[in-house]
Amino acid sequence: MGVVIPLDESKNKQASIKPLVDLTRADMERVNQLILAKAGSDVQMIPEVANHLISSGGKRLRPMLTIATANMFGYKGDAQVKLAASVEFMHTATLLHDDVVDESDLRRGRKTARILWGNQASVLVGDFLLGQAFRMMVEVGSLEALDVLSTAATVIAEGEVLQLSVAKNMDTTEDDYLQVIRAKTAALFAAAAEVGPIVAGTSKADRAALKSYGMNLGLAFQLVDDALDYGGKAADLGKNTGDDFREGKITLPVILAWRRGNEEDRRFWREAIEGGKNDDAGLERAYGLITKYGALTDTIARANHYGTIARDALAALPASPWKSALMEVIDFCIDRVN
Amino acid sequence: MGVVIPLDESKNKQASIKPLVDLTRADMERVNQLILAKAGSDVQMIPEVANHLISSGGKRLRPMLTIATANMFGYKGDAQVKLAASVEFMHTATLLHDDVVDESDLRRGRKTARILWGNQASVLVGDFLLGQAFRMMVEVGSLEALDVLSTAATVIAEGEVLQLSVAKNMDTTEDDYLQVIRAKTAALFAAAAEVGPIVAGTSKADRAALKSYGMNLGLAFQLVDDALDYGGKAADLGKNTGDDFREGKITLPVILAWRRGNEEDRRFWREAIEGGKNDDAGLERAYGLITKYGALTDTIARANHYGTIARDALAALPASPWKSALMEVIDFCIDRVN
Repeated sequence: MGVVIPLDESKNKQASIKPLVDLTRADMERVNQLILAKAGSDVQMIPEVANHLISSGGKRLRPMLTIATANMFGYKGDAQVKLAASVEFMHTATLLHDDVVDESDLRRGRKTARILWGNQASVLVGDFLLGQAFRMMVEVGSLEALDVLSTAATVIAEGEVLQLSVAKNMDTTEDDYLQVIRAKTAALFAAAAEVGPIVAGTSKADRAALKSYGMNLGLAFQLVDDALDYGGKAADLGKNTGDDFREGKITLPVILAWRRGNEEDRRFWREAIEGGKNDDAGLERAYGLITKYGALTDTIARANHYGTIARDALAALPASPWKSALMEVIDFCIDRVN
Repeated sequence: MGVVIPLDESKNKQASIKPLVDLTRADMERVNQLILAKAGSDVQMIPEVANHLISSGGKRLRPMLTIATANMFGYKGDAQVKLAASVEFMHTATLLHDDVVDESDLRRGRKTARILWGNQASVLVGDFLLGQAFRMMVEVGSLEALDVLSTAATVIAEGEVLQLSVAKNMDTTEDDYLQVIRAKTAALFAAAAEVGPIVAGTSKADRAALKSYGMNLGLAFQLVDDALDYGGKAADLGKNTGDDFREGKITLPVILAWRRGNEEDRRFWREAIEGGKNDDAGLERAYGLITKYGALTDTIARANHYGTIARDALAALPASPWKSALMEVIDFCIDRVN
C-alpha cells in the first residue's frame, strides 16, 4: 500500500551510510557506552524507559555527524564523544515527548514508551535525559558548544509548539511547514554538525559550512521522512504508512496535493484532516490524489533541492574520506524513499 | 475543613518574607522583565501558556534566593539576574510537566495550563522554558553555575520519576519520601542558593553553607506544603485541601498516620490510597486519623528540624540585613501552616 515512486535509473548504485558508519565506528562505540552509562539511575524506571528507546535500533545519524565533523578537522581530544552522546540524548528526549504529544502507539515498529510505561514516565524520563545531556555538555566545558546546543533545544521546542498550532489546519503553507521542520528536525542536525568544528577549533568559515550542511541535510531528511509516510519502503523502517494521515498531520505531500487539487479534492482533504474522516477508504483516496498531483515526487524534488545545498556547503572543504562519507549520507537520506 | 494545628503561643509575631522582598526588589524587577522577555516567541502559543503560569502570583522565592545569595557577598555584576530568571524558568517548566503528570486541574486557584491549552502544549512549552533557562545560564558563562543548575535539572527529573515509582504504595517509608522531596523540591532551592556565592566568587565554605541552607529550607518548605494539603490555611494559598489524598499521593502526614495506626486504620489507608476509595467521607476519616496520631503536628516538627539545620548553616556568616532576611524566610516557610 502507498504511492509508488519511479526509480531514478541514472544512478547505478544506492548511496550508503556505510562509509560514515565505518569511519566513526571506534568513537561511536564510546558514544554508545557513554549513552548506556548516562541513562543509568538508581531509580529503576529511568534506565528501563530510556533503554527501550535507546536500544530500538535508530541509526544514530545525529551523533555520527558530531563525531565526523570533529574528526574531519583532525581533532584529537575526547569532547566529541560527550557532545555526540548529548546530541543523541536531546534527540531521545524529544522522541519521548513527541510520542506523548502525538499520542503515538508505535515507533520503529515497537510499542512506544508511553504505551508501555505511561505518558507520565515518558515526560519525566525525557526531562531526565535532557538534564543529562546538559551535564555532559558542561563537562566538555565549551561555552560555544553549549550555546549552540542550548539554542537548538529551545528552537526544537518552539518548532514542536508551532507544529501544534498549525495542526489540522489545511491553510498551512509550504513556508509554515518549512519553518516547522527547520526548527523541529533540521536545527538539531545543524547543531550536531556545528559542534564538531567548534571543539576542533577550526575557522568560522568551516563552522558555518558544517552548520549549513547539517541544516540542509536535516531538511532533506525530514522531507523524505514525510514522503515515506505516504509510500516508499516505509514498512521496512518500522513506520506505519499512513500514520501522518490518520493523525491529521499536515506535511508537504498533503500541502501540495491540496493546493494543486480541485474544489472537490480540497473538500475531501478538509474533511479528512480537519474533520477527522481519516479511515482506510480516506487513506486510499489520499494516496490517489497524492499520485495524481505528483505531490510525492515533488516532495522528493524539494528534498533533492536541500540536499544540493548541503553538498555545496561542503564543496569548498579539502577532499578526505570524511568529506566523501558526509556527501554520501546526503544521497543516503534521500534514497531511503526508493 | 482540614486538621487544626495549635498555634505556637511563644512567638509574638508572624515571620515574614517582606524583608527579603524589600532587599531584592530592584533586582527582582529586572528578573521579572527578563522572564517576560525570554518567555516571548513568534509562536504565539508559547507566551500565552508561559505567562498564564508566570503571572499566577507565585512568590518567586527561588529566584529571590539567588539574588540574595549573590548580593550578600557584595556581588556587583549582572549574572545574578540571569541566573535567577533561569531558576524560575526551571521551576515553571517543572510545574507545567508536573500538572500533566499529576493530571491536576487547579494550581494557585486557577485552571492549569493543561486544562486551558492541553497536555501537549504544557509538555512542549515546559521544554521551551527549560531550553531558555539553559541559554541564559550559558550567557552568564560560569561553568560552575552551569554544572550546579544542570545537575539540579537531572536530579529534579529523577525525583519526579521516583515519586511516580512509589506512587500509591503504602509501603513507602519516611526515607523514601525524603529522597523524593530532596530531589524534586530541595535540589532546586539548594542550586538557587548556591549559584549566588558562585558568581560572587566567594569561598568554598560560603558556597557549601548556602547550598546547605537552600537544601534544608527546601525540605522544610515541601514538608509544610504537604502538611497544608491536610489543613492549615491551604484555602488562602489557592490550593485545594485534600488534593494529595484524592490523587493517592503518599506524603509524610499519611506515612505517619499509617505507621502509627492499627490494623483497621491501615486497611482504610490501603483502600483509600492504593484502591482509590478516596471520596469525601474517606477524606474526613483521613483528617480524623491524621489528627488522632499527631501526624500533622509531627510533619511540622520535621519541618522545624530541617529549618534549624538551615539556620545553623547560615550561622557562621557575618551579620547583615541579607542574612537576617534569609533567616526569617525559614520561619516564614514553616509559619505558613498556622
